[in-house]
Amino acid sequence: MKIEQFVAQSEGNWRSMRSGHSLAFRQFEQVLSEIKIKCLKLDNPEVTELIKFNQSLKYKPVSPFRIAWEADSDWEPEDPSQIKSGSCILIPFPITSNKGIIIRSSGYIEAVKSSSTYSFLSDNTFILRTKYQHSISEERIWFISKNVRCRSSVVYTSEGTGILQTSFASEVRHLSNNA
Amino acid sequence: MKIEQFVAQSEGNWRSMRSGHSLAFRQFEQVLSEIKIKCLKLDNPEVTELIKFNQSLKYKPVSPFRIAWEADSDWEPEDPSQIKSGSCILIPFPITSNKGIIIRSSGYIEAVKSSSTYSFLSDNTFILRTKYQHSISEERIWFISKNVRCRSSVVYTSEGTGILQTSFASEVRHLSNNA
Repeated sequence: MKIEQFVAQSEGNWRSMRSGHSLAFRQFEQVLSEIKIKCLKLDNPEVTELIKFNQSLKYKPVSPFRIAWEADSDWEPEDPSQIKSGSCILIPFPITSNKGIIIRSSGYIEAVKSSSTYSFLSDNTFILRTKYQHSISEERIWFISKNVRCRSSVVYTSEGTGILQTSFASEVRHLSNNA
Repeated sequence: MKIEQFVAQSEGNWRSMRSGHSLAFRQFEQVLSEIKIKCLKLDNPEVTELIKFNQSLKYKPVSPFRIAWEADSDWEPEDPSQIKSGSCILIPFPITSNKGIIIRSSGYIEAVKSSSTYSFLSDNTFILRTKYQHSISEERIWFISKNVRCRSSVVYTSEGTGILQTSFASEVRHLSNNA
């Protein structure tokens, strides 16, 4: 699958149910949230600025998009990765038709600009790997119907040996006027 | 990946954290459980009996195993698929090196003997599809380290159109004397 198709399929407003598993403590977290994914133009000023900061990339950017999220839960963690709302811009740079690099205006896990590698499995499951300063995350997203997708993530320690957390989200697209 | 390797990797005792998402009601369920996976011999009487009930299968059985599970939770649903403990025997019949059929002494979703098809994705994620009388389930299992695996499932209506439930389990292998 091409990243352009994947981004186009993902555009819209999604109601997310997300469960987090802290493996060491056997603790569950659950978060209801709203996620908005919107395609952007390559000449959008925020897009061109983010590209300017990554001039060393020799590949051609395609299908930039914005993700905005807002948690419904009353859960207020100290961890800045778990903030209740936010948004970031992502820009894919395909290397081949089924893998490439994605740059992001701010990461989910640690709030810094980050770059990730992506690839697609044989059934079009999207895999995104991001190296942060203190952790590595692997996210996988797969559509189980046109309007329902699953998203799992694993956060490893930066050495890649320990597993800090896993999570799983079920995301259902809904129609709304404020897309 | 071959099913024989996958079964061998899965043998052991696992502590499971499982989250269920009822999409229509936006309800979460969470279950702590203990799962034991044990390889069996092909001449085990329960294995030979299950094979006898499936004589129409023209493939050669390999790596039979038993899964036993016991929930730690105090959650007592009426749905018989969600019983607190149980066990079943599974027998793979490879068709090619990365796909085949699995027969099972009793299914998870509806408590009847069932047969499933399995396959492996390009990263060795194991996919198991089972058609029950009233539903279809798709389960995927992938190892995120030697001793941690993730298991997601989706339950569709038998027409394959509606999605009844998704779930996700994080399973951590532990050592114990009663393997």
